[in-house]
Amino acid sequence: MNNTQQHILIIGAGLCGSLLALRLGQRGYKVTVYEMRPDLRKVDISAGRSINLAFSDRGIKAMNMVGIQDQIEPLCIPMNGRMLHDLEGNTSFSPYSGRHEYINSISRGGLNALLLDEAEKHENVTIHFNKKCKSVDFENTTALFKDYDTNTEFEANADVIFATDGAGSAMRKSYYLGKKFLFSFSQNYLTHGYKELSIPPTEDGGFRTYKNALHIWGRDAFMLIALPNLDGSFTVTLFLSFDEGEYNFNNLTTKERVEEFFSTYFKDALELMPNLAEEFFENPSAPLGTVKCSPWHYKGNTLLMGDAAHAIVPFYGQGMNASFEDVTELDKVLEEGHTDWETIFKIYEANRKKDTDAIADLAIDNFFEMKGHVNKANFREKRQLEMALEKTFPTEYSSKYSLVTFNEELGYQEAMLRGRAQDKAILNMLADGIISNVEDMTEAELKETLENIKTATDNILEDDRIAGMKQ
Amino acid sequence: MNNTQQHILIIGAGLCGSLLALRLGQRGYKVTVYEMRPDLRKVDISAGRSINLAFSDRGIKAMNMVGIQDQIEPLCIPMNGRMLHDLEGNTSFSPYSGRHEYINSISRGGLNALLLDEAEKHENVTIHFNKKCKSVDFENTTALFKDYDTNTEFEANADVIFATDGAGSAMRKSYYLGKKFLFSFSQNYLTHGYKELSIPPTEDGGFRTYKNALHIWGRDAFMLIALPNLDGSFTVTLFLSFDEGEYNFNNLTTKERVEEFFSTYFKDALELMPNLAEEFFENPSAPLGTVKCSPWHYKGNTLLMGDAAHAIVPFYGQGMNASFEDVTELDKVLEEGHTDWETIFKIYEANRKKDTDAIADLAIDNFFEMKGHVNKANFREKRQLEMALEKTFPTEYSSKYSLVTFNEELGYQEAMLRGRAQDKAILNMLADGIISNVEDMTEAELKETLENIKTATDNILEDDRIAGMKQ
Repeated sequence: MNNTQQHILIIGAGLCGSLLALRLGQRGYKVTVYEMRPDLRKVDISAGRSINLAFSDRGIKAMNMVGIQDQIEPLCIPMNGRMLHDLEGNTSFSPYSGRHEYINSISRGGLNALLLDEAEKHENVTIHFNKKCKSVDFENTTALFKDYDTNTEFEANADVIFATDGAGSAMRKSYYLGKKFLFSFSQNYLTHGYKELSIPPTEDGGFRTYKNALHIWGRDAFMLIALPNLDGSFTVTLFLSFDEGEYNFNNLTTKERVEEFFSTYFKDALELMPNLAEEFFENPSAPLGTVKCSPWHYKGNTLLMGDAAHAIVPFYGQGMNASFEDVTELDKVLEEGHTDWETIFKIYEANRKKDTDAIADLAIDNFFEMKGHVNKANFREKRQLEMALEKTFPTEYSSKYSLVTFNEELGYQEAMLRGRAQDKAILNMLADGIISNVEDMTEAELKETLENIKTATDNILEDDRIAGMKQ
Repeated sequence: MNNTQQHILIIGAGLCGSLLALRLGQRGYKVTVYEMRPDLRKVDISAGRSINLAFSDRGIKAMNMVGIQDQIEPLCIPMNGRMLHDLEGNTSFSPYSGRHEYINSISRGGLNALLLDEAEKHENVTIHFNKKCKSVDFENTTALFKDYDTNTEFEANADVIFATDGAGSAMRKSYYLGKKFLFSFSQNYLTHGYKELSIPPTEDGGFRTYKNALHIWGRDAFMLIALPNLDGSFTVTLFLSFDEGEYNFNNLTTKERVEEFFSTYFKDALELMPNLAEEFFENPSAPLGTVKCSPWHYKGNTLLMGDAAHAIVPFYGQGMNASFEDVTELDKVLEEGHTDWETIFKIYEANRKKDTDAIADLAIDNFFEMKGHVNKANFREKRQLEMALEKTFPTEYSSKYSLVTFNEELGYQEAMLRGRAQDKAILNMLADGIISNVEDMTEAELKETLENIKTATDNILEDDRIAGMKQ
């Protein structure tokens, strides 16, 4: 007996919601989706949301599940590593992997449009736009919507409701305010916010700086990054404190001060950004928050997925990939043949929560790595060694970055635990002089170093286990 | 110039609020306190809140600050250690310290009444009861109250508002719902809740079991504890999952099942609890939550203190002590001579937040230690060694428990970092056989072991520092 005759309501047709609609549509469920925004295939609604995103192996796995990866490849620009820009404008390239693995820059809008098109090809899937969810009655499995087209409210009911309505989820708010069960919840903001800016294409549509990299201007207290777009432009993001330090979002109030700030810290970027002053004051500065909560589901009635369940900061490039992986993981439970939603949701959350908690923590770690550590000698030496190990022993070593980004069969939690232990082992062996002169190592020395790192990593994990520590 | 002509409003006259009122009264401020409950000196209102509490050195420091420790001593029953009860009813005593240090069981009501009496001795301090805070307008420094006596609402304004209104703080809710600033907030529940029960005194007012200990029946999946009261009774608390395991709060629905549960797992306690079945169904089962948030203050207008800022689970016996220490720490900033409240609040939070975060985490660690680890061989061996070290080298060694509980000049964060590293060092040295036969050690062997532990602890802290890890 299956449960596909049931009516499923999805709140939110963003990246996670539209993939979920597509997958449940493929499985034969009757799916209705309500999205707050207008149809992005008809109206330009990019304002305030990140324009391009990092798309990597966990995301690709999900696209393969629904059979559309071949349509997505043309939307991708490979980024093979970090291009680090120093104060003088000198650059150095730091690859993401010693195995030629890469991540991709992709347009949020283009990808979302494709997912919506694919979902709508299923006649059992219907998507409505301009319908904003106001609250969810999770006891009765109904949701209240405001229809922006008619300016009226209506209630929708279903057998099951999935909320994929993002970091500000209305259903999560209903869980919190409803006080019907013990709902653990956290929202944690960084002191830094972000603002999107741009590097335009050249006049003939080319790229003004190296195309196949994620550019980073890391300045410890703040940083600038840039990701390429298909039209030759780069989307640039400034990460800066709201109110700390000599320059911050609250005190960058004049065009002169903004230009002074950029010419002091991001001279070579400034030369590529003719529209900086206008964009700086036109575009919003937005906060960076992490949301965790539990339980995600209420009985077999409702489930939070994607950012609604676990919003993370953008520094590991895993936000979209993690949300896509949610759908892969839910699908895995469905594939096991369960038909009772409460059982399905319990298994899903028990499998998944530890991993989304881990990627949230990893993303915060990477904020400190990107804005500061990438410029430190010991960090650079560690990366140099890891690239040599991955290149020389491709099946025997993966850095933390590789475990998280390129090992889609390994959960984020395992990747975090092993990756952190490896980093600790290497950084301490460098500090103690047990590893040195990485650039001059013979293959035999490299092999010996690999074995030493493996032993030290296992010891760290074992010592933590004996002490009952979780990381 | 001082700021004592200002009018201060305190929301909540529990343990933290009444101590704060007393201290600010001593400093000459005009203080008005509004408390939701009736005056506990006139009405018995113990229901639903813990009846007795652990009172230790950080709390004593605060009582000395306000000069009332000599009045508090008669309310205290020293508890020198844990009395561990096994399944067969055998007991073993595990001291809290090798230096004869102890914690105290004290009545919440008795202590609160004393603090209220002392605060009211200051004519510049006024305390109103039956006034429930509904919300705080932190921009305008006003608070809205419901007067339970007259069933009307009124608004109170002040130069500064302190919210000491506990884990369910109305002002914290106003911070959260107000969305006027980036408010980081978390509430995290354990899967376990608690229920208070009792062991009555003997007919002649004596204690039915050993008086000077905190009794623990640790059963891994759940536990029972008991703390003595001055009248010869013990307050007993059952910590049990709401819905997991063979026995849980949700399925203990009949007198027979409760007695079966207690006779299986807490046989010797059951014999001392003639009123178990009645109390079990009369008394509520309540959740165990941790609350963290930041910022605690809004400009110089308002400040959260005590459980309102950082509610913790009860397993380290530090909830009240931490709240009292809040007042000590605020007083330290006032003593430095600052008169601008925004500056005072910023310094206070910068000093204090790391420590209340640490005790929250330590309290959760101790839940696992109390219900399970205390019965494990390696944990017992570690404690035995630590007691020998504290006894033999009283100025050179303090266990994590001692650092947290008996070292009031050391912040909780420092105590946590050093204490966890020490635990890790000892547990690993035991596992590796580097330490063995603790009971037969000569003083010279003990001294050598101490030095080994110190070296290993420093190495653990240094390795973590190099790896950029925070614990």
